[in-house]
Parts: sequence; structure tokens; C-alpha cells
Amino acid sequence: MKRGYLITFEGVDFSGKSLQAKKLVYQLERLGRRVEIFREPGGTAISEKIRRLLLDPSHGEMYPLTELLLYSASRAQLVQEKILPFLAQGKTVICDRFLDSSTAYQGYGRNIPLELVQQAHSLAIGNLRPDITFLLDIDPVFAFQRKSANRQLDRLESEKIEFYTRVRQGYLKIAEKEKKRFVVLDASHPPEEIQKKIWSEIKKILAI
Amino acid sequence: MKRGYLITFEGVDFSGKSLQAKKLVYQLERLGRRVEIFREPGGTAISEKIRRLLLDPSHGEMYPLTELLLYSASRAQLVQEKILPFLAQGKTVICDRFLDSSTAYQGYGRNIPLELVQQAHSLAIGNLRPDITFLLDIDPVFAFQRKSANRQLDRLESEKIEFYTRVRQGYLKIAEKEKKRFVVLDASHPPEEIQKKIWSEIKKILAI
Repeated sequence: MKRGYLITFEGVDFSGKSLQAKKLVYQLERLGRRVEIFREPGGTAISEKIRRLLLDPSHGEMYPLTELLLYSASRAQLVQEKILPFLAQGKTVICDRFLDSSTAYQGYGRNIPLELVQQAHSLAIGNLRPDITFLLDIDPVFAFQRKSANRQLDRLESEKIEFYTRVRQGYLKIAEKEKKRFVVLDASHPPEEIQKKIWSEIKKILAI
Repeated sequence: MKRGYLITFEGVDFSGKSLQAKKLVYQLERLGRRVEIFREPGGTAISEKIRRLLLDPSHGEMYPLTELLLYSASRAQLVQEKILPFLAQGKTVICDRFLDSSTAYQGYGRNIPLELVQQAHSLAIGNLRPDITFLLDIDPVFAFQRKSANRQLDRLESEKIEFYTRVRQGYLKIAEKEKKRFVVLDASHPPEEIQKKIWSEIKKILAI
């Protein structure tokens, strides 16, 4: 059986990537494709517990390296328990965040040397890389204006806009280095327009 | 100010290392030394939460790599938040388990390639190594006979004796490779005798 495709969505918080990931699942399922979607950190019982630890606003004293290793632990579990078996079954796997989030957030955002981030990737997921990655690029100031004013910000969201600007620039650098894998989309555009662009890329890859 | 000493205790479960670690703290404090003791995984608020995740018996589906990365995350936090600052203050730091536990348990015990375990160490603690490590060596069958029959075994303790035999052999291999750092003690001997041997080594190192 042909190995399934691994498709990832990346971008700063409130870039709209989760919405696009869900829409893609819907579109693929309508065509009868078997699709699995995961959000990171999370996707397994253990990874969801690690997620709670990571997003707990009381953990302000968490060091960047601890954060990187916790994300890596969550990802290692998700890959072994779910992603690899599903890909082997020929399913399409969609991830709302994956390794590039660690490079952008812990590497560029929190200034962990990129060689260390690469080492963490190699430990956690070996050579597994997405077949295609959609980067929803947007100015963080604009992205945060979208968020609901009522919802309480979690620890990561409370960080300064400066941090998110480094993350955004980091994402663009990764995309520049891996042009073949990345599709960069202007996330300030209307969701329907972005969805159409994603679908046209997906049709090429999946030969739909 | 002179950097403090980092002393670690290693061995299979029920080897008696925690008792010896506590006795050493008591002996050093009686001489007016400033001592801090930590157990791994744990020692910080975040690391204790990671400990709970690791030792939860319901997590039978945890993959060895996830385990290695969680121990590394806990250790990274402990080193940055506590161990490095205390050593810089000239304090003696005693750890009941440290990096060698990951090499012995996740490497030799769970068969993760040793190069990957080394990578995890390099990520989590950089070049920090203990000044001296006491390995309490004992046949796991004998060690488990010591445990109270009433206490419920946690997830790691429930593993088979075979596993602990690999861990024990792993510890002995590490000690063989790093003869300068390791003191191997026969943990089937009476605790008072072991304590005396530890104290005579400590006196040499700390020049007491």
C-alpha cells in the first residue's frame, strides 16, 4: 500500500491555520479520502497531558530548553503512536503545527541555537518530514486583533508581540530554506481565498 | 567563590541509594556544609509534574523516546533552575539519580541507541557532569525482595526483572567507561558499611 501524505499547517497564533486545516479535512473527506487530523502539542493521551503542562500560565519559570524537550516528547509520542501507523495505512495525516513550530518558537523566538533545535528534531522524529507545509504568514499585531477579547490568554499567548515578530521572521527563513516543501500564504487575505489556494496545491500533490 | 561539588547516586530501584544520599546530606550538614538534595525526576515544580506523568501506571503506551525526552526535560529544568545556581553559590549538590539513570534505563534498559541518549544529555545538560557518582550495585532480584510487599508498584517498577538486569549491566558498563568519576559499591552489604565507604571517598574529594 502507498504511504499516505503528511500535510502540516504552520503560522503564528491566530493566523487562521487551524480553520484552514479543518476545512482541508472536510474537503478531502468529501472526496472519500481517509484523513486524520492532529493538533500540536497533543493528539495522544500522553501528548495532551504534556500540552496542559506547556500551556499552564502558572509555569512562567519554564526554561526554553525544557519547553523544547517537552514539545519534542509530545511529538515523539504522536509520531510513534499515531502518525507513522496512519501513514503506513495510506491515510492522509494533517497536523496543525509540527516540527517547524519548534524551530520558529523555541529556536527563532526563544533564541535556542538552531543546531540544538535540529538535534531535538532528529531525536524526536528522526527523518520524518511533511510532504507539504502551508505557512499562513501574517503580521502578529494584525493576527492578535482577530482574537476574541473575552478569552483568557494562555502562557504562550501572553508573550510580547516582539516575540511573535521573531517567530514570524523565523518561519519565513525556514520557508526560504525549504522552498520545495513550503507554500507561503498571505493570511491577511479572506479565508475563502486562502482555502482555494491550498486546495489548488493539494490537487497537484494528491493528483485529485 | 569556588564552584560547589555535584555528587550523584545511581543504581536500580531498591538498591538503597536514596537512603545513602540522605545520610550523606546529614553528615555534610553536621560539618556545617551547605547542601542541597534533589531526586530525579523532580526537584522543581515543573519537574515534579513531569515526574507524575512519567510514573503514572496508566501510561503503558508511552514510547521509550517519549520517556527519554520527558526525563531530559525534567533534568533540563532542574539544572537551570536549581543545580547551576546552587553550584555557583559554592553549595554541594546531591542528586538521587541524574544523567546515568537515562543511559542505564532508557539506553541499556529500553534499547534506545546510546548515541541518541548522548544527544539527549547534550541537549538537556550540555557539558555538566557530576564530580563523583556512587553506583550502588546489586542483583535486582535481591533488591526487589527488600521492597515492602504492601506498597503498590509504579509503572516503571512493574517492569520485569529482566529489564532491571539489563539496567544493572548498563550501569556497570558506564562505570567501567568512566572509572575516574564512578565509585561502585556492593549494595548487598549492610548500609552502615556502605555509608563508611562513601564517607571515606567524600573526605578525599572535599578535603574534609
